[in-house]
Amino acid sequence: MSHVSGTSSLDRDAGTLRQQGLLEAFKHVRAMTVALTDGLSAEDCMLQSMPDASPVKWHLAHVTWFFETFVLEAATGSHYAPFDPAFRVLFNSYYVGVGERHPRAERGMISRPTLERVFAYRQAIDERTAALMASNAIDDALLDIFELGLNHEQQHQELILTDLKHHLWNNPLRPAWRAAPGDVGAAAAPWVPMRFIGRPEGIAQIGAEVAGFAFDNERPRHRAWLAPFAIASRPVTCGEYLRFIEDGGYARAELWLADGWDARLREAWAAPLYWECAHLDAAHDAAWQVFTLHGMKPLASDQPVAHVSYYEADAYARWAGARLPTEAEWECVAETADGASLQRRGEGWEWTQSAYLPYPGFRVASGAVGEYNGKFMVNQMVLRGGSSATPVGHVRSSYRNFFPPQARWQFSGIRLARDL
Amino acid sequence: MSHVSGTSSLDRDAGTLRQQGLLEAFKHVRAMTVALTDGLSAEDCMLQSMPDASPVKWHLAHVTWFFETFVLEAATGSHYAPFDPAFRVLFNSYYVGVGERHPRAERGMISRPTLERVFAYRQAIDERTAALMASNAIDDALLDIFELGLNHEQQHQELILTDLKHHLWNNPLRPAWRAAPGDVGAAAAPWVPMRFIGRPEGIAQIGAEVAGFAFDNERPRHRAWLAPFAIASRPVTCGEYLRFIEDGGYARAELWLADGWDARLREAWAAPLYWECAHLDAAHDAAWQVFTLHGMKPLASDQPVAHVSYYEADAYARWAGARLPTEAEWECVAETADGASLQRRGEGWEWTQSAYLPYPGFRVASGAVGEYNGKFMVNQMVLRGGSSATPVGHVRSSYRNFFPPQARWQFSGIRLARDL
Amino acid sequence: MSHVSGTSSLDRDAGTLRQQGLLEAFKHVRAMTVALTDGLSAEDCMLQSMPDASPVKWHLAHVTWFFETFVLEAATGSHYAPFDPAFRVLFNSYYVGVGERHPRAERGMISRPTLERVFAYRQAIDERTAALMASNAIDDALLDIFELGLNHEQQHQELILTDLKHHLWNNPLRPAWRAAPGDVGAAAAPWVPMRFIGRPEGIAQIGAEVAGFAFDNERPRHRAWLAPFAIASRPVTCGEYLRFIEDGGYARAELWLADGWDARLREAWAAPLYWECAHLDAAHDAAWQVFTLHGMKPLASDQPVAHVSYYEADAYARWAGARLPTEAEWECVAETADGASLQRRGEGWEWTQSAYLPYPGFRVASGAVGEYNGKFMVNQMVLRGGSSATPVGHVRSSYRNFFPPQARWQFSGIRLARDL
Amino acid sequence: MSHVSGTSSLDRDAGTLRQQGLLEAFKHVRAMTVALTDGLSAEDCMLQSMPDASPVKWHLAHVTWFFETFVLEAATGSHYAPFDPAFRVLFNSYYVGVGERHPRAERGMISRPTLERVFAYRQAIDERTAALMASNAIDDALLDIFELGLNHEQQHQELILTDLKHHLWNNPLRPAWRAAPGDVGAAAAPWVPMRFIGRPEGIAQIGAEVAGFAFDNERPRHRAWLAPFAIASRPVTCGEYLRFIEDGGYARAELWLADGWDARLREAWAAPLYWECAHLDAAHDAAWQVFTLHGMKPLASDQPVAHVSYYEADAYARWAGARLPTEAEWECVAETADGASLQRRGEGWEWTQSAYLPYPGFRVASGAVGEYNGKFMVNQMVLRGGSSATPVGHVRSSYRNFFPPQARWQFSGIRLARDL
Repeated sequence: MSHVSGTSSLDRDAGTLRQQGLLEAFKHVRAMTVALTDGLSAEDCMLQSMPDASPVKWHLAHVTWFFETFVLEAATGSHYAPFDPAFRVLFNSYYVGVGERHPRAERGMISRPTLERVFAYRQAIDERTAALMASNAIDDALLDIFELGLNHEQQHQELILTDLKHHLWNNPLRPAWRAAPGDVGAAAAPWVPMRFIGRPEGIAQIGAEVAGFAFDNERPRHRAWLAPFAIASRPVTCGEYLRFIEDGGYARAELWLADGWDARLREAWAAPLYWECAHLDAAHDAAWQVFTLHGMKPLASDQPVAHVSYYEADAYARWAGARLPTEAEWECVAETADGASLQRRGEGWEWTQSAYLPYPGFRVASGAVGEYNGKFMVNQMVLRGGSSATPVGHVRSSYRNFFPPQARWQFSGIRLARDL
Repeated sequence: MSHVSGTSSLDRDAGTLRQQGLLEAFKHVRAMTVALTDGLSAEDCMLQSMPDASPVKWHLAHVTWFFETFVLEAATGSHYAPFDPAFRVLFNSYYVGVGERHPRAERGMISRPTLERVFAYRQAIDERTAALMASNAIDDALLDIFELGLNHEQQHQELILTDLKHHLWNNPLRPAWRAAPGDVGAAAAPWVPMRFIGRPEGIAQIGAEVAGFAFDNERPRHRAWLAPFAIASRPVTCGEYLRFIEDGGYARAELWLADGWDARLREAWAAPLYWECAHLDAAHDAAWQVFTLHGMKPLASDQPVAHVSYYEADAYARWAGARLPTEAEWECVAETADGASLQRRGEGWEWTQSAYLPYPGFRVASGAVGEYNGKFMVNQMVLRGGSSATPVGHVRSSYRNFFPPQARWQFSGIRLARDL
Repeated sequence: MSHVSGTSSLDRDAGTLRQQGLLEAFKHVRAMTVALTDGLSAEDCMLQSMPDASPVKWHLAHVTWFFETFVLEAATGSHYAPFDPAFRVLFNSYYVGVGERHPRAERGMISRPTLERVFAYRQAIDERTAALMASNAIDDALLDIFELGLNHEQQHQELILTDLKHHLWNNPLRPAWRAAPGDVGAAAAPWVPMRFIGRPEGIAQIGAEVAGFAFDNERPRHRAWLAPFAIASRPVTCGEYLRFIEDGGYARAELWLADGWDARLREAWAAPLYWECAHLDAAHDAAWQVFTLHGMKPLASDQPVAHVSYYEADAYARWAGARLPTEAEWECVAETADGASLQRRGEGWEWTQSAYLPYPGFRVASGAVGEYNGKFMVNQMVLRGGSSATPVGHVRSSYRNFFPPQARWQFSGIRLARDL
Repeated sequence: MSHVSGTSSLDRDAGTLRQQGLLEAFKHVRAMTVALTDGLSAEDCMLQSMPDASPVKWHLAHVTWFFETFVLEAATGSHYAPFDPAFRVLFNSYYVGVGERHPRAERGMISRPTLERVFAYRQAIDERTAALMASNAIDDALLDIFELGLNHEQQHQELILTDLKHHLWNNPLRPAWRAAPGDVGAAAAPWVPMRFIGRPEGIAQIGAEVAGFAFDNERPRHRAWLAPFAIASRPVTCGEYLRFIEDGGYARAELWLADGWDARLREAWAAPLYWECAHLDAAHDAAWQVFTLHGMKPLASDQPVAHVSYYEADAYARWAGARLPTEAEWECVAETADGASLQRRGEGWEWTQSAYLPYPGFRVASGAVGEYNGKFMVNQMVLRGGSSATPVGHVRSSYRNFFPPQARWQFSGIRLARDL
């Protein structure tokens, strides 16, 4: 199958306009990724603190590999000359359909290629991609994958920050990514009283519309019946969460799911990840320091709590006499004027009570790119919203983020809901 | 709170009739449990092959502990004289609200009390319970718990068989529970062609009715919107599953969920649990022997496949161009005449695509008995149906069984479904 | 090779006398083993608390397997009809040369054969062995193995007690093996002041003499040069060890070998195995209870300390300004009148500073029986002495017991030494 | 205690001459260490492939920390101003007496300080040290520690190469440290027939003389009785080792120690570390490629085999009808003209049959520096000799290298011995 037409002069039709738009977006997204590494050393970019969190260098190369493999090679065919044949294995994440993969836990073992060479790789693929897009008419199927590649790279922009935060935190010196105005993970959210937004029972439309980009897991749009419920107007703050800690929340098994209690004991959780108690009286807000991408900072009581697991979010909700929302509840309120705050960037991701499962009628794409989302639909919970590390366009009502219930290194917080 | 009225002469009212009926059921259920141990030695009853599978002796004592703790002690109050104070800890399963628990993985370390003493414990509690029920009017709240205790013991009747099967299989001699007519786990299901039962979109009523016993997780009955779908008229057979094996199903990553593929590699799965390949040509049905509660038996092609994980069920369905049903789809068809086969005892449990989560409006009971179901609502998938190890009354359309997706020691099989 | 002469009338020569003596010893040793199980249930005999500690039932069968395999089968040849062919695998411990072995960690999974059948196995092999020994002249090579079998069974008599102690201790009820006069593991040792027995430098003769039974690892007898040293006249007592605990011995890294300190942290050791601190002031002798084969008992200050690892013995010696003796030092003093106490049964085994390595000129026997000792000569330390669980004949100056440095479930204690 | 005299003009006495000589040696050793990093990137220097193998950057800093802590700080006293207070913890290896230590397994997590700053640290400490040594008379006790620091840094020079080799090998691209003339780990050893050098029984003098530098574990010099033995004139070659592989050496349990066989199965060993079999017929020498510090190279049959564990060395010796020498045998032959080859640099380290234990009369130094050697005297085997990665001065007859029996990442090989 050829994705490229033979014509060298481009028509001014819709396809061409889309292609030009995507090329502009490409340049913008690619530059944004590189900008995140300002001030990082080659050593910083090689850190891998755990298998789940990849080195920055690996992210930089992997998103490039995506364009090389699924766009350039797909457009060119079997005579495509790769930038470096070894990169096909080194920077493949989990696409079994593409072939072998370097083990995830050993991504930190790759001192060669150097960071410098990875930047050269980025530049070469940028140039090849720009040349392809400028001189050939690309068919819609490949443009779809190209657009997926842009969104894919944006997802990795967020992961670069969340992973880097974890890497740096493993250094006892607690170094900062950069000194900067306001933490990416802790945008200022002026405190307002929490109120509950009610909704009567009825059928809701869930999932992304046909038009516009969305990941496959956001579709198809479908109906769901919702019982009457109410959802909080804002997320739970650090100050509120501290009340839970003070009330013995981490010592009361009856508040926790069984697996959550096991995790809490096994991991010795006593507070969200990155919270450190600096003096003896843990009940004082002032006792707490929080590690951010800008180093250790005092706890900000009015900010949304972040870096809690699903288990902690669930236990907090039980303690508060509430529950977590389902993703359908979250989404149908987010689409209303009253619920606009649910989509506000910077508030943090919010655990929902929904397991990450396929929507009715879900189909995976054919080929290796079909591995993008579908094969992870078990053992994970859906998060909705978006943090200040989230690229702007990814904050939308149908976006389904997902992580295992014990994950804490993402900017994951809590919004309450209730049955009516 | 007293659950017992002072009156010694019982009225012939509804409450009394219910109490008498439950006492009869109690005698029946208790005798059924003991009957399962016919032919087992004290040594057999102490086996524990893995933390998930408890010794038969422990099951015998634990279900008794449930009646002693939640019925006798609750009815008697703080002056209750326990049969043996140590049993409160030894035979508590997971009720944190009751106090300390002997670690699950070490249940096989309990040679004392002996099996003989556990039978004495059963008899003593039987007598005390019968005396209580015969001479006092018990209020409805406690009768509810009494009825829960009966259903609880029936659940453990099934676990006695599934756990014992696993224990015995760990002996290289592959000993039988007992020589008997037909395997509990492999009831004869005469082969019929598979057809798909369709259902148009619409609202379904899901969950147990208000009347009659049901576990808390089956309620409240509520509405759900279902997209159009079809569900298979019978479960997948061993012979059909063998075609999947022959077609390289265990070697093709693209058929599997990512976590499933990891499990398959880590555990070196190449067939369902208890299948053993006796000669070189694994593609011949005759090559396979299957361990049953009656020892090793030739593979019976027409019987429903059992002892597969959710991951294998899901991979099989993908290979077959289908998917697993959701629990709501399963239940709404089971309530129709056409779907009656879904509730046929002996067919085996069937993995659904639904994560085990609370129904809208779900509330846990107050007190320790509230730990019965709710705290397990994460990281598990729902199974529907029932095996020949399942007590008759537990095969009902609203019954929600649940296990982690990697579990294989239950009689867990596959039913296919499709979007329409 | 035939080990049996055709003659049916036995000559009154030396060989015959030896054979008759061994048959008498056989009857005695076999009866002693069975006597250890008095009062144990079939359930007790199936316990396996850790891979290192085997079930009593397994010990009973394994020592019988040794006679069946290395004596009866060797004497009879390939037409030997085994008692049960499955036992060849089930009750082989580690003799790769004999064939497959049931995994050590799963010995507790063998409910069948039952204990009753294992006793039948013992009786059958007893009868076959007695018949063989009474009616045939056995050559010296096979009589040597027969004698090894007796000593082997005696070693397992000790292991039956040490392993059973560990099994029973894993039951929170802390049940006793039997109520009895004095703990097997805690023989009364009237306290006497410790003094040091000096020895000038010179050549010592180490190892078993040619005459009499000894294990292969005790030979050949050879010379060793010893620098001047002194060795304590008695082992360290529980009371003395308690001073080490009080003085923060378990909290002072400088007293410990690096691997020992790691083990102490990992295992959270704060006292010898089986010591339990009953009240808050751990510095009071009366605060401590000790688990024995007769249940929990108050700490007996004057008894030798037992159930310490090599790491604890080494740390104690450093704290005491001393060191552990080498095995050569121990042995050469044990052979003197002054050092007779080193061989007193009941005092407990004593860790030496010597790694378990072959003596100069050591040769393993040919055939599977050659696996008896030699293949374990790495990663273990030598212990000398003997506990009250040790059969009388095994307490001799050349006997080399050996365990890994972290082992604590044996009756292992401490004797001090010093350079002069 | 002050280690520095107040006089500013140095006398030309013996102490001063020693001090001047040590300062010269210091400059030489420090420069040699830096030279090893030529051509390595900051990323290469941060690699940590396993807890046992530290990053090059850490080695560079740790040996500097040793001089700062044990020389500069000791000479200056409590008013010493450290280069960076955080380094006290970050670059402490295992000296509990000095205080906290960054966990060994997380040394690869230190992107800050950068490599550049570590070089600045080296330079600053070099300057401070030179200034101290040039302007003050240092007492002998501190000069002893200074000399220990030089030898310590030389030991780390070897570890830089062995660790780096392991780090780079974990990259699937198998990158080279540098292209260079001859592999550090595979010096040319022209093949000569193996012969055995005999020695009659008698007393040998073992250990370092009083004069000259030696590590504490080489002393005191003492007598040992040796039975008659013979030792091979050269180490076992790769070609000879390949015969062992071809003869099924890795499949014959009877050749192995029990722990060795377990390790071989668990780790799936089938050849020395770094050997890779490039085609199907593993019995052909040409089938094998070997990873070196200069990349993948064909197997050189005549070179000494390296990168085998003690278990493999022991199994090879048993297969060859021989045994490994004891360290006393090795040392007493090494001091003869006939045994000079045992001390030839480049041949590789040679496993001995001796456990790493204290010599009679061994005393550890007081203070934290006493942790240098003594606390590792358990669970390790002694190696003698030296590889081409070993600094010249460290190849001496009394030098005791030691590693756990499963270690393979050192240049560890085999020399045979026999009883006479």
